[in-house]
Amino acid sequence: MRHLMSPLDFSVEEVAKVLDLASDIEKNPAKYAHACDGKVLATLFYEPSTRTRLSFESAMIHLGGQVLGFSSAASSSASKGESVSDTIRMISCYADICAMRHPKEGAPMVASAVSGIPVINAGDGGHQHPTQTLTDLMTIRSLKGRLDHITIGLCGDLKFGRTVHSLVKALVRYENVRFVFISPEELRIPSYIREEVLDANGQEYKEVERLEDVIGELDLLYMTRVQKERFFNEEDYVRLKDFYILNKEKMDLAKPDMLVLHPLPRVNEISVEVDNDPRAVYFKQVQYGVYVRMALILTLLEVNV
Amino acid sequence: MRHLMSPLDFSVEEVAKVLDLASDIEKNPAKYAHACDGKVLATLFYEPSTRTRLSFESAMIHLGGQVLGFSSAASSSASKGESVSDTIRMISCYADICAMRHPKEGAPMVASAVSGIPVINAGDGGHQHPTQTLTDLMTIRSLKGRLDHITIGLCGDLKFGRTVHSLVKALVRYENVRFVFISPEELRIPSYIREEVLDANGQEYKEVERLEDVIGELDLLYMTRVQKERFFNEEDYVRLKDFYILNKEKMDLAKPDMLVLHPLPRVNEISVEVDNDPRAVYFKQVQYGVYVRMALILTLLEVNV
Amino acid sequence: MRHLMSPLDFSVEEVAKVLDLASDIEKNPAKYAHACDGKVLATLFYEPSTRTRLSFESAMIHLGGQVLGFSSAASSSASKGESVSDTIRMISCYADICAMRHPKEGAPMVASAVSGIPVINAGDGGHQHPTQTLTDLMTIRSLKGRLDHITIGLCGDLKFGRTVHSLVKALVRYENVRFVFISPEELRIPSYIREEVLDANGQEYKEVERLEDVIGELDLLYMTRVQKERFFNEEDYVRLKDFYILNKEKMDLAKPDMLVLHPLPRVNEISVEVDNDPRAVYFKQVQYGVYVRMALILTLLEVNV
Repeated sequence: MRHLMSPLDFSVEEVAKVLDLASDIEKNPAKYAHACDGKVLATLFYEPSTRTRLSFESAMIHLGGQVLGFSSAASSSASKGESVSDTIRMISCYADICAMRHPKEGAPMVASAVSGIPVINAGDGGHQHPTQTLTDLMTIRSLKGRLDHITIGLCGDLKFGRTVHSLVKALVRYENVRFVFISPEELRIPSYIREEVLDANGQEYKEVERLEDVIGELDLLYMTRVQKERFFNEEDYVRLKDFYILNKEKMDLAKPDMLVLHPLPRVNEISVEVDNDPRAVYFKQVQYGVYVRMALILTLLEVNV
Repeated sequence: MRHLMSPLDFSVEEVAKVLDLASDIEKNPAKYAHACDGKVLATLFYEPSTRTRLSFESAMIHLGGQVLGFSSAASSSASKGESVSDTIRMISCYADICAMRHPKEGAPMVASAVSGIPVINAGDGGHQHPTQTLTDLMTIRSLKGRLDHITIGLCGDLKFGRTVHSLVKALVRYENVRFVFISPEELRIPSYIREEVLDANGQEYKEVERLEDVIGELDLLYMTRVQKERFFNEEDYVRLKDFYILNKEKMDLAKPDMLVLHPLPRVNEISVEVDNDPRAVYFKQVQYGVYVRMALILTLLEVNV
Repeated sequence: MRHLMSPLDFSVEEVAKVLDLASDIEKNPAKYAHACDGKVLATLFYEPSTRTRLSFESAMIHLGGQVLGFSSAASSSASKGESVSDTIRMISCYADICAMRHPKEGAPMVASAVSGIPVINAGDGGHQHPTQTLTDLMTIRSLKGRLDHITIGLCGDLKFGRTVHSLVKALVRYENVRFVFISPEELRIPSYIREEVLDANGQEYKEVERLEDVIGELDLLYMTRVQKERFFNEEDYVRLKDFYILNKEKMDLAKPDMLVLHPLPRVNEISVEVDNDPRAVYFKQVQYGVYVRMALILTLLEVNV
C-alpha cells in the first residue's frame, strides 16, 4: 500500500504517469465516472481548507465514490484527546482512502505508519502540500506543453510559502529550468532551499526585488499570497503585503505567452483587472486540481480503468 | 445560463411551470430519481441555516445527484480573505449548480456575475429568499388549488420578515389577492412595500393590530417568527415577541378551511396545540420545499425528464 | 414504525437477529451494497462525535444510501430556538431514517414521539448509547463465539461511563455472566445499577480496586476512558486518570484468550504497547460498529435483502 506524503514520493516517471492519467480524465470524464463506485474517501481536515477539501470531494464524487469526514478539529475526536494514530485506525474501518490536513508538520506521516488505507497529505503546517504541487505541474505541462526548458518566476512570500518550496523541489528534477525569485529581502527563499535544493543540483537561479525588472524574461509567473497568519506582527504584514501586486501595467511588460499561476486564495496580490487576461490561468489551475486528485485517488487505490 | 436571485426573476408563467414540475415530482418521485445522476450541487452557506441547506441537499440527493459545500463562514476560505467572486469561480470547477446563503445583501448577485454555474440565492441578509417564496406559493397552490382570489393574513414581524416581503411581491402578480397585515405598530410592513408594491399596483389591503379581529375572514394565515437577531435591544424583543401567538382559541374563530403557513423555525408564535389541527400545514410546507427545490434544480440545469 | 432508544428495546431474540444480520453483512458485503439505494440517513449531532457520526455515515454509504445532517448544535436550527420536536418533523421530510446525538437525556425519545421516520438514539447525555452496546455485543459474540458463560471485567470510570451501564444491562439477560467491576472508590458503579440491575437479577458480581488482582480470571476486559468532562474539578481528574492504565505488564497476567475491548477514544488508559497484542480488539470493534449499524438501519427501515 502506498501513501503520498511529499511531491517527491513519486519519481519523475511516476509523476508523468499521474499527469497522463489526469489528462485522460480531462478528455474522457465519462470513462471514469464509475471508476470508484462503492469506494469511500475520508476527508480529515484538522484545520479548515475549503479549497483543498472540496477539490478532493469533487474528485471522488466525479469518480462515482462517496465522501465522509470532518472539516475542522473542533468537530473531530482530537478534541477528546485522541491521537492521530488512533483516529486513522478508526477511519480505516470507515473508508478506502483518506486525505488529511493537519496544522502540525508530520501528522499525516505518523498516520500513514499505522493506517490500513492510503493516506494523502493534504497539507501539514508549513511543510508539504503535494497535491498542490501536482496541480501546478499539471497546469504547466497542460498549458505550456512541457515541464523542462522553462524560466519560472516565483513572486511574493518565498520564505513561508509552502507551495513555492514544494514546486521548486519538484521542478529541479526537470532539464533546464531557470528560477527567478522575486521577493522583498524579508521574505527571501530560505537558505536551505538555496543550498540543499538549488546549489546542490547546480541549478541556475537569481534573486531580485522588483517584479518589473524580470517579468519580461519569464515563461511562467507563480504568484503567492502574503499570508497574514505567517507574520509575527501586524506591522510587518501591512508594510509588505502590497509590495508585489500584479496589475495590467506589469502584465504589459510580460511575454505574450507568459502564464500566471497562483495557488489561491488570492487576496489582492493580483489585481482583478488581470483576471480576464488570457495569460491568467489561476482559475484553470483549480480545474486541473480536480483532475490530478482524481488521477491520484485512482493510482493509490490501484484502480485500473 | 440562468440564476435565481429574486422570486420575481421568474414570470408568472415560469413560476407556473416550476410549480407544475414540482407537483409532477410529488406524484412521480421515481421518475426523477436519477435525473441528476453525475451532477453535483454545492451548498455555500456563509451563515448557518440547517433547514434551507438540508432542503437543498435532500432535493439534490432525491434527483440522484451529489452534494458538497460548507455550512458556515468559519469553514470557508472567506476567512482567508477570499472574495465571493473568487470562491464561486473555484466552485464552478467542482460543481454543476450552487445554492448560496450569505449574511450580506447582494452577495449571491455578485457571485452570479462571474459564475460558471447557475447560482441560487438561498437567502442574502434581510433581502431575498426566493426558494422560500416558491415553497410558499407551491403550498398555497397545492392545498388551496389556486394563487388568485384569496384573502391572506400575514402576522407577526412584518417589518424585518424577509419572507413576508417576498411573498407579498410574488402574490400581487395574481388576480384578486387581498392582504391583511397583522402586527404591532412597531413591526408594521415597511412603507416601501405599501407604496411601491401595494399602492403602485392598486392593491387592496388593510393593516390591523389584533389577529382575533380578522382571522375569521382569512383563507390563509401566514405566521412569522419574531426573530431576536432583528431587534436592537432585548427589552423590545421581550415586550413584543409574545404579542401574536396563534392558539386553539384563535383557531376556533377561523374558517374551517383556513390554512396556517409558517416559514419555520417556529419558536412560540404558534402554540403546539395547533399542530394537530388539519389546517396547520407548516410541516407540509417543508415537504413542498423539497419538491420546489428539485424542480428548480432541474429547471436551472435544463434537465428534461 | 420502530425506533431504537435503549439497548433493551430489542429482546434477546431480536438482538440475536440484528447480530446475525451484521455477521452476514460482514461475510457478504456485496450482497448489501445497494440495499438502501435511494434512501437517506440524517445524522443530527447536537454535540460532536466524529466516531459515532462517521460510523453511521459509513454504514449508510456501504448500503448504497446517502447522508445529510449536521455535526454540532452551532450549525443546527436549535440555535434559533427550534425544539427537537419541530426539527425532527422537518427532517422527516428530508430523510428516511435518523441518528440523533444530543447532550440532553431523553431528547431522542421526545423526537421519536412525533417523528415520521425511525429515530436511532446515537447517545443522549449520560443516558443511553444503544449502538455502542450492540457493537460491544457483536464484538464479544464474533470473537468469543458466545454472549453467555463469560467473566467480564469492566475497568475505569464506572460511575459516569454510559457505555458500561448499558453493557451491564444488556449482558444480565444472558446466562452465567460474571461481572468484575474494577475502579477507584470515587468512580464505582452507581448504586442503582447494583440494586436494580444486578441484585434484582440475582446476578453474581464483585467490585475491586486493583486490576492486577483480577485480570487473570477474566475472559473479557472492557476498558473505559476517564472523561475529563465528567469531573467536577481538575484536581480529581488528574489524581484519578492514570489510576487504571493497561500495559504489557498487566497483560502478561491475563489469560491467553482474554479480549480487551474499549469504546474509544482511548487517551492513555491503554498503553500503545498493548495495541499489537492479538488480544487487543478495540480497533476491530470499530469495524463491527459499522456492520451493526448497517444491520440496524436495514432492520428499522424493514429492508429485506
